[in-house]
Amino acid sequence: MIEGVVVQPLRQIADERGKVMHMLREDSPLFSRFGEVYFSVVNPGAVKAWKRHKLMTQHLTVPSGSVRFVIHDDRPDSPTQGHTDIIEIGDEDNYCLLKIPPMLWYGFKGVAAIPSLIANCADMAHSPEECERAEMLDNCIPYSWGA
Amino acid sequence: MIEGVVVQPLRQIADERGKVMHMLREDSPLFSRFGEVYFSVVNPGAVKAWKRHKLMTQHLTVPSGSVRFVIHDDRPDSPTQGHTDIIEIGDEDNYCLLKIPPMLWYGFKGVAAIPSLIANCADMAHSPEECERAEMLDNCIPYSWGA
Repeated sequence: MIEGVVVQPLRQIADERGKVMHMLREDSPLFSRFGEVYFSVVNPGAVKAWKRHKLMTQHLTVPSGSVRFVIHDDRPDSPTQGHTDIIEIGDEDNYCLLKIPPMLWYGFKGVAAIPSLIANCADMAHSPEECERAEMLDNCIPYSWGA
Repeated sequence: MIEGVVVQPLRQIADERGKVMHMLREDSPLFSRFGEVYFSVVNPGAVKAWKRHKLMTQHLTVPSGSVRFVIHDDRPDSPTQGHTDIIEIGDEDNYCLLKIPPMLWYGFKGVAAIPSLIANCADMAHSPEECERAEMLDNCIPYSWGA
């Protein structure tokens, strides 16, 4: 796993009326501070890539649907420089919290038959100034999103 | 509207790949502190009622599906004591943040054809000690959830 990336299994407590799905508490060792909570919906087969935050740490989960996250480390001082991690998170299989620290490239793809919902509880509010983008076909990142 | 309850319209920014859905930022006048973010799924037609938090302020939204929230004020010192508010929130119609302060009775019902997802960004982590429950048919609360 890329240095600084954490995947933590999360609990779901179900009954006949529905379920409760954990995400993040202030007493979690993964929590530092609250900046913003928001959602991204990604349609079946759609890709959002690549992005990199200079400052923001993201805490992501997928409470509905299923999403493939791809993370690439090109930080020159990282022990995992050059590594690429792929992780799929969803409400039915592998319901997890994914922590992505700043300065890592990442992208994601909806891999459920329905639109998938990603929740992000970030340590700072969204700011376009600290967010970088690269083309989906950028040759510097060794992952192909397919057709 | 019941004293202390706030309903704030939220933005959704859509493109062909999906959308981004706002929820809550640290610079919002509605935000005080972060305690926990978690989800409740409520199946079509299912009811979860009644609950009351002694201390927790909830910030709720519905990023998938549609939910009817019913809130009842029996606080003896409230200017809206005796009032009952009904509000429906969903991802397609009336995407809003709903702030429910402590000491109000509330319940909710899934009113979409699919399971609905409620997100709660609360000012304290969940604790069973500060949460009270009453029967769905409690006669002290003048609202019938139907069959």
